[in-house]
Amino acid sequence: MAKVSPLAPTGFPDLPAIGGLRLAAGEAGVKYRGRADVMLAEMVDGTTVAGVLTQSLTASAPVELCRRHLKGGEARALIVNAGNANAFTGKAGDAAAERSVEAVADLILCRPSRVFAASTGVIGEPLPDETIVAALDDLQAGLADDAWPAAAQAIMTTDTFPKGAHATADIDGTMVNIAGIAKGSGMIAPDMATMLAFVFTDAALPAPVLQALLDQVTPITFNAITVDSDTSTSDTLLLFATGAAGNTAPDGESDPALADFRQKLEAVCLDLAQQIVRDGEGASKFIAITVTGAEHDAAAKRIALSIANSPLVKTAIAGEDANWGRIVMAVGKAGERADRDKLNIDIGGVAVARGGLRVDDFDEAPVAGHMKGQEIDIHVDVGIADGLQAGSATVWTCDLTHDYISINADYRS
Amino acid sequence: MAKVSPLAPTGFPDLPAIGGLRLAAGEAGVKYRGRADVMLAEMVDGTTVAGVLTQSLTASAPVELCRRHLKGGEARALIVNAGNANAFTGKAGDAAAERSVEAVADLILCRPSRVFAASTGVIGEPLPDETIVAALDDLQAGLADDAWPAAAQAIMTTDTFPKGAHATADIDGTMVNIAGIAKGSGMIAPDMATMLAFVFTDAALPAPVLQALLDQVTPITFNAITVDSDTSTSDTLLLFATGAAGNTAPDGESDPALADFRQKLEAVCLDLAQQIVRDGEGASKFIAITVTGAEHDAAAKRIALSIANSPLVKTAIAGEDANWGRIVMAVGKAGERADRDKLNIDIGGVAVARGGLRVDDFDEAPVAGHMKGQEIDIHVDVGIADGLQAGSATVWTCDLTHDYISINADYRS
Repeated sequence: MAKVSPLAPTGFPDLPAIGGLRLAAGEAGVKYRGRADVMLAEMVDGTTVAGVLTQSLTASAPVELCRRHLKGGEARALIVNAGNANAFTGKAGDAAAERSVEAVADLILCRPSRVFAASTGVIGEPLPDETIVAALDDLQAGLADDAWPAAAQAIMTTDTFPKGAHATADIDGTMVNIAGIAKGSGMIAPDMATMLAFVFTDAALPAPVLQALLDQVTPITFNAITVDSDTSTSDTLLLFATGAAGNTAPDGESDPALADFRQKLEAVCLDLAQQIVRDGEGASKFIAITVTGAEHDAAAKRIALSIANSPLVKTAIAGEDANWGRIVMAVGKAGERADRDKLNIDIGGVAVARGGLRVDDFDEAPVAGHMKGQEIDIHVDVGIADGLQAGSATVWTCDLTHDYISINADYRS
Repeated sequence: MAKVSPLAPTGFPDLPAIGGLRLAAGEAGVKYRGRADVMLAEMVDGTTVAGVLTQSLTASAPVELCRRHLKGGEARALIVNAGNANAFTGKAGDAAAERSVEAVADLILCRPSRVFAASTGVIGEPLPDETIVAALDDLQAGLADDAWPAAAQAIMTTDTFPKGAHATADIDGTMVNIAGIAKGSGMIAPDMATMLAFVFTDAALPAPVLQALLDQVTPITFNAITVDSDTSTSDTLLLFATGAAGNTAPDGESDPALADFRQKLEAVCLDLAQQIVRDGEGASKFIAITVTGAEHDAAAKRIALSIANSPLVKTAIAGEDANWGRIVMAVGKAGERADRDKLNIDIGGVAVARGGLRVDDFDEAPVAGHMKGQEIDIHVDVGIADGLQAGSATVWTCDLTHDYISINADYRS
């Protein structure tokens, strides 16, 4: 395993037990040896579920299975393996996913349509589902409400640290918990739910409300990160609500009683998403890119992603070079309106360009110092609109280093 | 200067003199020291011109100047410097470009609107146009019809070899010459004329006909290559026709007498474009990607570019790994129709996937041997259409190596 990312948090957070949820991790030997590679979550009857899945047109078998099962809105279990993505495996892959899910359903006595599945790892190899099925008895025996670290570790592939986040929210006077885990390091790009993330809450929320809330927070959390512009076949974000907290039922997704829950859900999703960037393959810098003054928010996001995905911008930052000429280039290629003669750029809070020109004789020392740090902050105003009408967006990415090449010219197969 | 690309041609071609064209190179000291960094081309009165310029919304000052001057359709001179792109330099940059062009017009006694300009190098630094103007007398004294190698070298930046190509074409019984030079190595992506390329012919062709021909060949030559998905602010492709060959005037762009000329123009443009890929920053492999069976040609090209721009595909090829799972991923993220269960993939002419599945027990040895070579050939059929209705496209790119990171984490400023 690679050394832990220099941008990793100091440790795995202390996630709370979620009423109605038990977790377990185990060794199925799908591909890796000597480490946990499969996790099972069992949830109380009546748990609701929402999800966001990859937009890839070559989606994996478990992604297609989740798409079908989400229509029911209810969940009893989640089975996840690392080491094999069960993607580009044709009808045999569909059958393998279904066999895993049916075995879980037999084990806990529920309908197969209430079991969700996710797989991550190599694309194109047949999934040895019999190894997963064989591990289920041990997994069931190990189910516990505090198995968060083991579950988060079991779903890792090229990740260098397990990822977790949690929050507490107030729904109409009842305190509810939100806790989630995620994995992801490469093949990370937005326009989907990035890689695997599973968020659980004990709130009592109908599936349509849960889905509406998830659809609101995904664009500004998981879909606002990128490591390498490559969208995975397997991206899966699932949000489960067990209802154990016993809060009063909301009056639809717009109920003001959900405001705090929505905000805390966003915070948990953003924390997990940023941890994925912090574990970006080869990452040495965590980069926040904010674009303002755009025609609308979607334009601002496209410009921000054009900067975040530019190999020339990412290599400049790896070289600790405040090369704003490359930022200008990336604004120009984004295809969205920008006014060359009104462009303003700040790096680390220092104005380096104003009105489409380099700021004469700006003090380079604080900018150079900022570039040497691990947290890089870039702000571009494209000068098309201002005030309340102006579009804005923030995305998060990492730099492009020698280690990214080393990891990806060697990994597989 | 970096070592010469391992993919470089064996030498600079022996380009023919073009009647009505003289070239010179010189040292203006714009940025580099001890090497030629400026070139001048003078053309006979009546020379027509066509051009394709960057689609970047932060285009450079000389690009905007060319856009204005192309409206006239006539050219007398071209002035090009390396070391400074005169991009993101605001109104001062526009004035610097105009002063250079006016000095050339004074020198050769022509209208400034018939002088074209291009600049390549660092973005955002003021162009020291006085150094270019000071070099003009020497440039004029050195004008010659065989100064091709010096001209091609004077426009290089991170290029590791000068780029030239030529062909002879038959227009209605008259043989005409086509010869061109180009530069480019990084910040190379399609949807424009990639970096700087200047093609000259002694054919007699009206400017609208010349522009129509150039618009036909650009999408399948310069706009079908990519090094790093980053579109430059300065991309400029200009085609000049001096008329010295004295061919009969064509009856519009559709005149069958132009068929051979169009084909040879395409060959010269493709040769130059592929030389740019062969000089891609850090390149160790030249990669041709053909997509067939798509909904239409534009869809095929978007899928091919999605593969060509994927960092995970490019690093796998750098690692000599026939990782077609990453090709599947790149097809899936392209956003164009593809049938997962009909996808066929060939690498080096060997079927590795058929009908959406890995080919069982295919012979890996010839594929592994192909991946160790310098010329990589990938063919993907996406299974949406076949026969004459099917869309297809080929694009060319290079791999992503440690040297790309080294070059771009250090270069500047």
